[in-house]
Amino acid sequence: MIGYGFMGRAHSNAYKRLNDFFDVEHRPVLKVVAARNQQKAKAFADQWGYERIESDWRSVVAADDIDLIDIVAPNYLHRDIAIAAAEAGKMVLCEKPLAMNVSEAEEMTDAVEKAGVPNMVWFNYRRVPAIALAKQVVDEGRIGRPFHYRATYLQDWTIAEDVPQGGAALWRLDLKEAGSGVTGDLLAHSIDTAMWLNGPITRVTAKTETFIKERIHAETGELQPVGIDDACMFLAEFANGSLGTFESTRYARGRKNFNTFELNGADGSVYFDLEEPQYLQYFEYLQKQSGQKIEDHLTGWRKIHVSNFEHPYMDRYWVPGTTIGYEHTFLNALADFVIGLETGKPVQPDFRNALQTQRVCDSVLESARTGEWRETGVEV
Amino acid sequence: MIGYGFMGRAHSNAYKRLNDFFDVEHRPVLKVVAARNQQKAKAFADQWGYERIESDWRSVVAADDIDLIDIVAPNYLHRDIAIAAAEAGKMVLCEKPLAMNVSEAEEMTDAVEKAGVPNMVWFNYRRVPAIALAKQVVDEGRIGRPFHYRATYLQDWTIAEDVPQGGAALWRLDLKEAGSGVTGDLLAHSIDTAMWLNGPITRVTAKTETFIKERIHAETGELQPVGIDDACMFLAEFANGSLGTFESTRYARGRKNFNTFELNGADGSVYFDLEEPQYLQYFEYLQKQSGQKIEDHLTGWRKIHVSNFEHPYMDRYWVPGTTIGYEHTFLNALADFVIGLETGKPVQPDFRNALQTQRVCDSVLESARTGEWRETGVEV
Amino acid sequence: MIGYGFMGRAHSNAYKRLNDFFDVEHRPVLKVVAARNQQKAKAFADQWGYERIESDWRSVVAADDIDLIDIVAPNYLHRDIAIAAAEAGKMVLCEKPLAMNVSEAEEMTDAVEKAGVPNMVWFNYRRVPAIALAKQVVDEGRIGRPFHYRATYLQDWTIAEDVPQGGAALWRLDLKEAGSGVTGDLLAHSIDTAMWLNGPITRVTAKTETFIKERIHAETGELQPVGIDDACMFLAEFANGSLGTFESTRYARGRKNFNTFELNGADGSVYFDLEEPQYLQYFEYLQKQSGQKIEDHLTGWRKIHVSNFEHPYMDRYWVPGTTIGYEHTFLNALADFVIGLETGKPVQPDFRNALQTQRVCDSVLESARTGEWRETGVEV
Amino acid sequence: MIGYGFMGRAHSNAYKRLNDFFDVEHRPVLKVVAARNQQKAKAFADQWGYERIESDWRSVVAADDIDLIDIVAPNYLHRDIAIAAAEAGKMVLCEKPLAMNVSEAEEMTDAVEKAGVPNMVWFNYRRVPAIALAKQVVDEGRIGRPFHYRATYLQDWTIAEDVPQGGAALWRLDLKEAGSGVTGDLLAHSIDTAMWLNGPITRVTAKTETFIKERIHAETGELQPVGIDDACMFLAEFANGSLGTFESTRYARGRKNFNTFELNGADGSVYFDLEEPQYLQYFEYLQKQSGQKIEDHLTGWRKIHVSNFEHPYMDRYWVPGTTIGYEHTFLNALADFVIGLETGKPVQPDFRNALQTQRVCDSVLESARTGEWRETGVEV
Repeated sequence: MIGYGFMGRAHSNAYKRLNDFFDVEHRPVLKVVAARNQQKAKAFADQWGYERIESDWRSVVAADDIDLIDIVAPNYLHRDIAIAAAEAGKMVLCEKPLAMNVSEAEEMTDAVEKAGVPNMVWFNYRRVPAIALAKQVVDEGRIGRPFHYRATYLQDWTIAEDVPQGGAALWRLDLKEAGSGVTGDLLAHSIDTAMWLNGPITRVTAKTETFIKERIHAETGELQPVGIDDACMFLAEFANGSLGTFESTRYARGRKNFNTFELNGADGSVYFDLEEPQYLQYFEYLQKQSGQKIEDHLTGWRKIHVSNFEHPYMDRYWVPGTTIGYEHTFLNALADFVIGLETGKPVQPDFRNALQTQRVCDSVLESARTGEWRETGVEV
Repeated sequence: MIGYGFMGRAHSNAYKRLNDFFDVEHRPVLKVVAARNQQKAKAFADQWGYERIESDWRSVVAADDIDLIDIVAPNYLHRDIAIAAAEAGKMVLCEKPLAMNVSEAEEMTDAVEKAGVPNMVWFNYRRVPAIALAKQVVDEGRIGRPFHYRATYLQDWTIAEDVPQGGAALWRLDLKEAGSGVTGDLLAHSIDTAMWLNGPITRVTAKTETFIKERIHAETGELQPVGIDDACMFLAEFANGSLGTFESTRYARGRKNFNTFELNGADGSVYFDLEEPQYLQYFEYLQKQSGQKIEDHLTGWRKIHVSNFEHPYMDRYWVPGTTIGYEHTFLNALADFVIGLETGKPVQPDFRNALQTQRVCDSVLESARTGEWRETGVEV
Repeated sequence: MIGYGFMGRAHSNAYKRLNDFFDVEHRPVLKVVAARNQQKAKAFADQWGYERIESDWRSVVAADDIDLIDIVAPNYLHRDIAIAAAEAGKMVLCEKPLAMNVSEAEEMTDAVEKAGVPNMVWFNYRRVPAIALAKQVVDEGRIGRPFHYRATYLQDWTIAEDVPQGGAALWRLDLKEAGSGVTGDLLAHSIDTAMWLNGPITRVTAKTETFIKERIHAETGELQPVGIDDACMFLAEFANGSLGTFESTRYARGRKNFNTFELNGADGSVYFDLEEPQYLQYFEYLQKQSGQKIEDHLTGWRKIHVSNFEHPYMDRYWVPGTTIGYEHTFLNALADFVIGLETGKPVQPDFRNALQTQRVCDSVLESARTGEWRETGVEV
Repeated sequence: MIGYGFMGRAHSNAYKRLNDFFDVEHRPVLKVVAARNQQKAKAFADQWGYERIESDWRSVVAADDIDLIDIVAPNYLHRDIAIAAAEAGKMVLCEKPLAMNVSEAEEMTDAVEKAGVPNMVWFNYRRVPAIALAKQVVDEGRIGRPFHYRATYLQDWTIAEDVPQGGAALWRLDLKEAGSGVTGDLLAHSIDTAMWLNGPITRVTAKTETFIKERIHAETGELQPVGIDDACMFLAEFANGSLGTFESTRYARGRKNFNTFELNGADGSVYFDLEEPQYLQYFEYLQKQSGQKIEDHLTGWRKIHVSNFEHPYMDRYWVPGTTIGYEHTFLNALADFVIGLETGKPVQPDFRNALQTQRVCDSVLESARTGEWRETGVEV
């Protein structure tokens, strides 16, 4: 584990829970945490039961007793760690966004493919059961010809002007460490989900904004210009001919984790909201569905409580009607990765897949800079 | 029109709107308003376009130019007016509850049946399109064997101790004029809907409460004991073997017009809430419904926006997606009454039907007094 | 009344209901309906009680007994009728969108201003009580510095390929008569509401799409190319520095009348959905609001049932907890117009105000054609 | 751990997660699982990491290396195990309902109190953060004089006639092993929550029903009469003068885990639904609350997303906007128990507290048998 903090906790929890809930042969052993701050690394390792800590990630990559490198360090470190890990023949799991930009992401993808090491990017929301159910609904052909996709990822935690930026806890607000603001942090999720459900995004036009222009640095106390995008919105064309709208911000008062999407097709629609992760909303056009029988008086949005044994992942947990939490999305992702190892069918999204999301992110930022529509270059 | 006030307005509006929205031959003419307070009656008649006013309802009943008597006077007057109107050969429409008690209701029913005059009781909520759709769903056999019915009718407008009681505006809070509190005013609606959807209620056990023991009289200013039930709750057995819970109050802070019901059967369920009258919620058990095809992963409560042309009454109004208001339930009821006249198929609920609801109300109040289960005597 | 049909009904209803619900001195008299199809005009006039019909709108404009011209004819006729009516010194009410384009809208605005005649454009949704309450919340300063505005207006009624276009019933689908598709029909509403609540929109970038390329003409049966925009989405900058996303379509399966907006500010947010018109959702940032007292554990989106006597327009109708319908938005608009006449404070939106919305619509369509950001030219 | 199965998993998970999320000194060690079926016990112990298994619970109670006995065996075994464990000086945690009846519960309470051993009953729903927040809202005096409490606990999993009863997996459907049906299994939760929030229940009148009269035994295949209550509903009086309605069933089609409650007081109300465990709905009567300032136009039910650091338990988990799952209620309960040990302030509900709930359950069943109101005997 390279890095710790919030994502470090979420990943560690996944490793420790894997064999409680999934029948797989691999049994993760928590070996080492590497981080600059040795005191915090120590506390973290003690809390979660890692065997040792290291100050330099390079020694972890080089260690013989390590089979898998999990990267939860700030984004600017992803490239170097991933490439070194791949070259050392380790499996590599990397937090999203994959990289600072497409160029890095390409290098990283080349490295893991050349080394032939198993790899995955933690787009954990694909493992929300309701989102996995949405994918199943799409794959079952229930949506029909797609017309529209719309996604938002809204939060409100940086509205106050006195929120600092930078440092170990708030590197996501520091352009140099994060690479971008909401585009990489939040929209990357929206884009990954969108392309998983609705295929490649081919063109975009975007607008970004930084509402608060200066913030204090969390550690130095210096007033600095804010470099990241506080908000980003874009219009998109999908390869399948449908249209998309995307918006993300940390300035939507009252929205905590409002990661929503809606896909509208000729035969049906789905809607999801991460603040109510136990539900998938589904609209089925009954005339189509029931053939001869017209039941227009019964059409309506159906709120599916995704907690039956028939639902994705839910047979691993409790009983119908009970919910799982945020952390289980990481556990499900890890389980899928391990099952991929054991079955020989590598899990998605791997680095190559995440590279496509990176292409869209870069195109969005470029469009925001130039004010023009951009081709994304995503493989169709 | 005998009486005025809130219900007088709602009924008058229905008469004036009938021919704008329904293709019927009858064209209502607003002739006369009778009320004790001549000044208010005059203002009311001017506002709504009645031709004249009267101080004594007896002269209206006797008038040759009157074909139909609509009773919106306080409950204690229903009996005398209805019987006199029937004896005079007039059609009689009566606000709910039909009477102060079963004995009066029986007399009234006898009178209209003996006179052979068309009659209806204004249980207007049957004409909410979503409730009419619930009835259609039941009649289509989609619920299966019924197990449970639960209803609430919650309001919060009498919580403050300084709300006065009695007088022209607040006779509903005066036991002598109203006969009961929430039981006759609110639960009567719940009971009418319940028996319409789920058949006769045969046994009940009940509890009533008066939270505020004394109130000022609205006109005299005198402090008086409160005689009505502020709240009433009861358990019920239906003739079809299902169980019911009913509750009504004017002390549920935050509930304005929370008239809800839910019916659970082996094959499906419906839920309704009058604060969201445009929706019927419907749960369809898909394994049953779709025969061979098991689609358990798609089951969920469906929120039907009851605004399609296929929905009850909605072809008379605007376009799909638009809603109608509270007042249209009276208009729909009147239209059904007139269509009943013109087709020779009398509308329901007539006096005899409303007498059954009165039986349940009386049994509930009697059970609350005695603490024992009571047979309702409703015809099965 | 020039024209009839759906909007003709909604407006006629408003004229007939005005004095039942509002205490104003003016008493509308329904004089004449003008329409090409004399048979339909006759049926319409009979249904609603108009005194006579005319085949040529010019004779209505010229008639001495007419004080007010209400234009519900197809959009391509708005300009000529409005200008002629203004020149004849009549009051002019016009359905939205005001015109086929900015140039026409400017001519019309000049005409009514030069003639000094009272005028209004029927952006009826401003008169939904919950939207009027949103305006009140904004005006009370409860939102704080605005960051984001997002609006959708989604429907699904033209998905089927065999929906015809054109003719008396479906002129909205015919480019020559409507001027545009969803942009003028639906987005014009969204833009009007947005600028009412959040001020001028200054720049836009847009994308439109026509999903079904050919349709049968409703009257001739000929297969024709579809000229209108089936869907339109755009990004916007507001003069106050906030960002906007807008989207409209008739291809969002399951969305009937999904006219939604959300405004996020530093201190609070509001959300509205026309499918649930009785609610305004409001998020109040309590730390700010309650001063010393921090009550972060109680923050949440508040679903305000806009049916209290304190709410806009609701003291004119029934009792708390009851809802009004779609048609009352027209009645409220008419009442505001008449109150404007009687108080000497002209109602908004008048032609000049609606001209601003037209500027945004034209800019959106132009941006969609060119792929570039456009200045709207709206007065700031 | 005496017993295994569903609750065994939930408890085991709690023990294993305790030190990951809570800073307590105790570190649970999973020693032994006792169960009749050795094969299943072995699989369970392997899955969760228990050191050994036993076939007889008595040997566990007698073992020197065991400090705490956790009882998840069928209800009919609770009494003997708990008393033996207490006499052996072990801490005792017991699944709900505490016992088969009040008599057993009294014996058990006496035993743990006499032995002076720490004890707790797993009414885990008190540890749902939103329910704990409801308790906080009540304790802060925000509800005012209470008028009404209503609770439902609805499920639908036994509707099919071919669901078997009895045996290791389905002992909850077997009267001899469970003691009652929904009353002990589901209503016990509702009653515990109700008395925690709203004080003692003093009188009840109840009705139970068994819809399916005969079922196959899960292990023997024999057709047997069904002894348990499939459904139970009752009316209640609280010591504080408020009224209650309670209903539970496994025959409410579409309701999976519909454990809801609502408390209405003069100043505010709260509502909760376990199918949406991340929300507490709260209605605040603003006139009262804000003193001078009347803000009736802003009142509404507030949907609190209980995921802020300020919310009960949520500072132990992830970030605002993320949810926890069903299993965490057990973890929170265990943490509270351990914190109680470490701070010397014993956790609630202990056996004595759970005995009160047992009194209500017994009174409900007795009332259902006799058809009469019953005093519960709960200490006031």
